[in-house]
Amino acid sequence: MSARKLHLAVAQMGPVQRSDSRQRVVARLLEMLREAHSRGATWVTFPELALTTFFPRWSMEDPAEVHAFFETEMPGPLTQPLFDAARALGVGFYLGYAELAGGVQYNTSILVGRDGGIVGKYRKIHIPGEAATREGQAVQHLEKKYFEVGDLGFPVWQTPDAAIGMCICNDRRWPETYRVMGLQRVEVVMVGYNTPSGYTQWDEPLHLRMHHHLLSLQAGAYQNACWVAAAGKAGVEEGNPMIGGSCIVAPTGEVMVRTFSEDDEVINFVCDLSASENYRANIFNFAAHRRPEHYGMIVSRKGAQAPDGGA
Amino acid sequence: MSARKLHLAVAQMGPVQRSDSRQRVVARLLEMLREAHSRGATWVTFPELALTTFFPRWSMEDPAEVHAFFETEMPGPLTQPLFDAARALGVGFYLGYAELAGGVQYNTSILVGRDGGIVGKYRKIHIPGEAATREGQAVQHLEKKYFEVGDLGFPVWQTPDAAIGMCICNDRRWPETYRVMGLQRVEVVMVGYNTPSGYTQWDEPLHLRMHHHLLSLQAGAYQNACWVAAAGKAGVEEGNPMIGGSCIVAPTGEVMVRTFSEDDEVINFVCDLSASENYRANIFNFAAHRRPEHYGMIVSRKGAQAPDGGA
Repeated sequence: MSARKLHLAVAQMGPVQRSDSRQRVVARLLEMLREAHSRGATWVTFPELALTTFFPRWSMEDPAEVHAFFETEMPGPLTQPLFDAARALGVGFYLGYAELAGGVQYNTSILVGRDGGIVGKYRKIHIPGEAATREGQAVQHLEKKYFEVGDLGFPVWQTPDAAIGMCICNDRRWPETYRVMGLQRVEVVMVGYNTPSGYTQWDEPLHLRMHHHLLSLQAGAYQNACWVAAAGKAGVEEGNPMIGGSCIVAPTGEVMVRTFSEDDEVINFVCDLSASENYRANIFNFAAHRRPEHYGMIVSRKGAQAPDGGA
Repeated sequence: MSARKLHLAVAQMGPVQRSDSRQRVVARLLEMLREAHSRGATWVTFPELALTTFFPRWSMEDPAEVHAFFETEMPGPLTQPLFDAARALGVGFYLGYAELAGGVQYNTSILVGRDGGIVGKYRKIHIPGEAATREGQAVQHLEKKYFEVGDLGFPVWQTPDAAIGMCICNDRRWPETYRVMGLQRVEVVMVGYNTPSGYTQWDEPLHLRMHHHLLSLQAGAYQNACWVAAAGKAGVEEGNPMIGGSCIVAPTGEVMVRTFSEDDEVINFVCDLSASENYRANIFNFAAHRRPEHYGMIVSRKGAQAPDGGA
């Protein structure tokens, strides 16, 4: 099989504090975009909500206070330099941000091509956390309060380099996310995330955070024969620590490269896209082996119900 | 949260040669059933096609030759001792075998309760390999020739001890398998397998066999908040080596215990079923977080197609 190479980079970010301006954040992103380019990478994955701090940790009622974290246009004046750099360097990118569209709030990512043009947009579908403030709890997780469920599905875009799909943070834990893209022959899934490492809102040992993050990416990559490029915002943001572990995972389910720090850090890997073709022609030949006639419950049922076999 | 304990065992088998009689194989199974009981375990998982050698490696045309590997009744005279021991010891079990039912051949597993009665039956849905002999190849993989696709879905049975589901070998690599059972609040998935370790019918490094086996089990357990008990037939069967790595995986996605050998070996673990409840009430609260309106393609599409976003 002839190798078909794609040089990917992942740009992990250290924390973004509430006082950090968009200009300052964009300058950090630009520096990492250039660093990735200097190593030969042609696509860069940035984190979820990369332009601001992870604001769903706070309970806010004033719309103006909330909307200060959102973008009303992409590119806008402050993000235009990223698009200009993409075109000048010939480097495409994934960027996560809070999107205010016609009064509706989404947790969004955008895919920008190597010509600086917008390839596609994704709006987060698996929104975790709560819709209402938990009284007496210092750190909230109010994504369901601030974001509507995405309405764009899980598209895959055929770029000149590869078939690329996107998801965001909690989406990566759900096998349906990757499968819908796998059924469109996705070759690269890009995902940004913010995952706490230092506190818990339910009874789970903290050491499992990194394990579950990597396990979900590795299984999604293997079971759908795709590469996964995952970029986190890490380190201590407004007193709240977040995991690093940004990485690039192969269709073998192996982590090929990962970040060492919890700060701004670029990693890169030359990916052989033909590995996808090999898996898709054999063990994961969907047309030969899948049995959708036995999968109906995945779509017909939302929540879990009592065992069917006991009836 | 109060712990709800279930003591599981997994009985890995060393190889079964073609010349080994059913009586001899059943004697090995009985010895491991008793060993599991002596440690306090109340349910045992045995491998796929546990009663015979893994015969799909051979191309056979004579129906009588093929049918010699199949059971026409369960229990039959030679397997009745397993059911008697289950009742006498109060130990339930999963057993994989080739089933001939009304002239139709299935790769089947049966769940036998602690009273020795049949709880349920599963017929393998994800049949790997080929339907036709590959000329010039010493070792075949003819499961599609010898087995029809299962027609019983992925039921989960509410036993007095736990909600138990079953799958077989290649089923464990497909996230749909676990998800359909997760949507029935499965607490324990039992799976038997035969996985080659010493040759390949396509271009994949052999060291990945164990990695993919464990990754699939770990992801299925974590993403569906269930325990997984996996039993392989391992070692060199008729010249063909197979992986061991039989194990019990927690809803955390962690391997809690695994076999050391590629021979007959019992492992056991006291499983806390309340861990499932914890995950299901939080990060994997399906009713709160799943979005089936975006999963339609999983059921409407069998094989992969071109990227949709490129249209």
